[in-house]
Amino acid sequence: MPTDMSLTSDDAEKFLLAAKRAEIQALERLVGSCELVTTVSDLVHQLQRERGISNIYLVSAGFRFSGQRQQQVRNCAASEAAFRRLLHHRYLQSTRSDSPQNMRLLNSIAYSLHGLDELANLRRHVDAFEVSALESTDAFCRLIAGLLSVVFEAADVADDPEVTRLLVALFNFMQAKEFSGQERAWGAIGFAGSRFDEKLHGRLAQLQDCQRRSLELFAEFAGETELARWRAVEDCQESRDLQRLRGVIAGLKDDEPIAAEISEVWYELATARIDAMHRLEDAMAARLLQVSRQRVAESQSELGHHYAQLQRMKSTGWTRPPALAVLFDPEVPGLYGSTPDTMVTPLPGQHLAHSLYDLIRSQVAHIHRVSEELEQTRRALTERKRVERAKGILMRRLRLTEEDAYRTMQTRAMEMNLKLADVAEKILQIGSGERSASDGVSDSASSTSEKQTVEAGKAGA
Amino acid sequence: MPTDMSLTSDDAEKFLLAAKRAEIQALERLVGSCELVTTVSDLVHQLQRERGISNIYLVSAGFRFSGQRQQQVRNCAASEAAFRRLLHHRYLQSTRSDSPQNMRLLNSIAYSLHGLDELANLRRHVDAFEVSALESTDAFCRLIAGLLSVVFEAADVADDPEVTRLLVALFNFMQAKEFSGQERAWGAIGFAGSRFDEKLHGRLAQLQDCQRRSLELFAEFAGETELARWRAVEDCQESRDLQRLRGVIAGLKDDEPIAAEISEVWYELATARIDAMHRLEDAMAARLLQVSRQRVAESQSELGHHYAQLQRMKSTGWTRPPALAVLFDPEVPGLYGSTPDTMVTPLPGQHLAHSLYDLIRSQVAHIHRVSEELEQTRRALTERKRVERAKGILMRRLRLTEEDAYRTMQTRAMEMNLKLADVAEKILQIGSGERSASDGVSDSASSTSEKQTVEAGKAGA
Repeated sequence: MPTDMSLTSDDAEKFLLAAKRAEIQALERLVGSCELVTTVSDLVHQLQRERGISNIYLVSAGFRFSGQRQQQVRNCAASEAAFRRLLHHRYLQSTRSDSPQNMRLLNSIAYSLHGLDELANLRRHVDAFEVSALESTDAFCRLIAGLLSVVFEAADVADDPEVTRLLVALFNFMQAKEFSGQERAWGAIGFAGSRFDEKLHGRLAQLQDCQRRSLELFAEFAGETELARWRAVEDCQESRDLQRLRGVIAGLKDDEPIAAEISEVWYELATARIDAMHRLEDAMAARLLQVSRQRVAESQSELGHHYAQLQRMKSTGWTRPPALAVLFDPEVPGLYGSTPDTMVTPLPGQHLAHSLYDLIRSQVAHIHRVSEELEQTRRALTERKRVERAKGILMRRLRLTEEDAYRTMQTRAMEMNLKLADVAEKILQIGSGERSASDGVSDSASSTSEKQTVEAGKAGA
Repeated sequence: MPTDMSLTSDDAEKFLLAAKRAEIQALERLVGSCELVTTVSDLVHQLQRERGISNIYLVSAGFRFSGQRQQQVRNCAASEAAFRRLLHHRYLQSTRSDSPQNMRLLNSIAYSLHGLDELANLRRHVDAFEVSALESTDAFCRLIAGLLSVVFEAADVADDPEVTRLLVALFNFMQAKEFSGQERAWGAIGFAGSRFDEKLHGRLAQLQDCQRRSLELFAEFAGETELARWRAVEDCQESRDLQRLRGVIAGLKDDEPIAAEISEVWYELATARIDAMHRLEDAMAARLLQVSRQRVAESQSELGHHYAQLQRMKSTGWTRPPALAVLFDPEVPGLYGSTPDTMVTPLPGQHLAHSLYDLIRSQVAHIHRVSEELEQTRRALTERKRVERAKGILMRRLRLTEEDAYRTMQTRAMEMNLKLADVAEKILQIGSGERSASDGVSDSASSTSEKQTVEAGKAGA
């Protein structure tokens, strides 16, 4: 009977090792994403500072913060240069160009770079007082939203469960910080115009609500260390003072005279909180790098262990116990119904792999554990994306504001006793039905703007 | 004001193009997976034939199908050699070793190769009549289940929506065909022993049920062409005859004398149906290759279009309309609540990209469409995995057979008015809670056997 033994050889072994090497490569790419996220976190922080300073510069007609602004523009330029250097080194150098990257991550980078390229133009407008504080803030917000979407994509394409959890926690924390920055900006605009009308009160309340929601997601995915540090930030004197000041502002009537000191206290307290958040952000970014590098090291050591085991099996001195093969393993279901009475029982714990089959089985178990954990974490991301997309559809179709669209979905969820993600799912189903009924051109245009709403929505509300 | 213009340059453009190239690379890898699936489909078919022939050879104590068996072993060897050649060419050659592959796909290949390495051993046992027909069938089923898991992983890691749909349709169709093969095997065993007891009747009914479930999933994901071809198979004379014969067999009492012709008619009709399924399988595999190659071509042409557009924008003769930049785009939400009254309206259809920003936006829209479609398709896969895992837990914890575990979940779903996947979700939540309570060693062992149940469960029921 012809069996081509020269072909069988050690293929299974080669693929076992190739699978492990594929894991190592994926984890190395992930380390790259984490390094990128770290520089993005710094750049976002610098841009948030420049936004706040530019605001005061514009509102004071250039009398205040002129020097600080020049210094902060230099800080931003340094941070931007570091970001671009990393991008060149990591993604554009010819030696690395063969290693495939993720399209979505790269495109979100293109989007952010395009925004950064416009920054010089924005600054010229600020120099010449050609933009209002509101317009300038708006532009900075768009730029920051693009950068936050890089972090979101990095989290969404990560394939290690713990790193994904940390990235999701960091992304939501960065969002909360951005909402804090926007709250500070609206407060500053209110003080500058001495106007706290109903609309402004509503916006401040909603931005505080957005922070709460983002921080809830952060808390869901963060580790104990980060949570403890965050509680310490929340419990400090500045946070309690800020909370009290929020109450005072919420009580202000429109056109009510406001003591000048309150404006400065507001800016200082909000800034202190944002800076405290940035320190925690830095700590999270450092842990992210540490954990992702550790994953690579672990995976490399597992590969070394595989090699050692295979070596040992081949060495003549090694007394090999009879190897169980997959085709005759009673634990592996074969013909349907062939073993209805002999039930599957767990193997006793084996500390040594006795055969190639054991190595393959342990790798199957490893992949199974990782995939299952990853799926649990990703579900939260998927549900979030669904909610954002459904919100975009409601905004477009019913001409609602972002907050109203969100409230509509929340109300529906409560009425129907469903999860928010399930309501979103229903909206998306209706939405996609309507969309495919429209013609190709307007279809593509509408989904462009929808995506933008979603993209920016990640950071914008 | 310092802005480092030398750094800004054309980074955004480079990343726009890098993103498109990343898509092309991913699609090229996908073509590789589709080629692999095509050879797996052929190998599985040859192994199914060898399983059936070996069965009759063993049951007849070597008096029947001896020549056919030798021929079929040669067919299998040729198909296996083609499979291994493709694997070497695609995954183990040094020039390709830099292009990262997916760990899960590679590991499922290692698992299958390990099974194939045992095939010579199995054949020697058959030669020497050292295994029963049931044991031989069992071993072939395990081998085929491993190969089917390669197709499942290929579907699960694919990142194009249409190719994923085709892979999911093909996987479920291959499963249905495998259940048909197992039904044929149990029928043959029943006829050989002239026994159709209650247990055997139950198994046959359950295998028919499994075929129906797999074919429903096939129908959900297949294209119109495949569905039409499948309906033609179902409507042909052989299928109707097989259906009638199933009814006759279901009416057989235990130890009732059976006309010898029925046994042969059973084998012929079941084989005719399986062969018809294989022809459709071939057609699906061909379409899979065609569609995946077309995707690469489309993506390459889009890259060419990007280049042409960018060239045109740079050429001096090109009168460029004022370019809208992301930072000043009123359609992109900026500061929360800053534009509550000017609602987002779809852009009129643009046939020409007028600026880099337009190109980036259209690529964002493209990614958005692809991701959303992919997510819809993958949800079906995820729910399926969840059901399989939950079934594995019930089998282990409650010591149920596969079918009983499935029925238990179905009953629960009906009682609680939930989807099957939601019931599975609840079981998994309880399961993971219990598991983390147990110690590390037994934990790892139990999840090994759980994964095996799941892996094989994909093909085994």
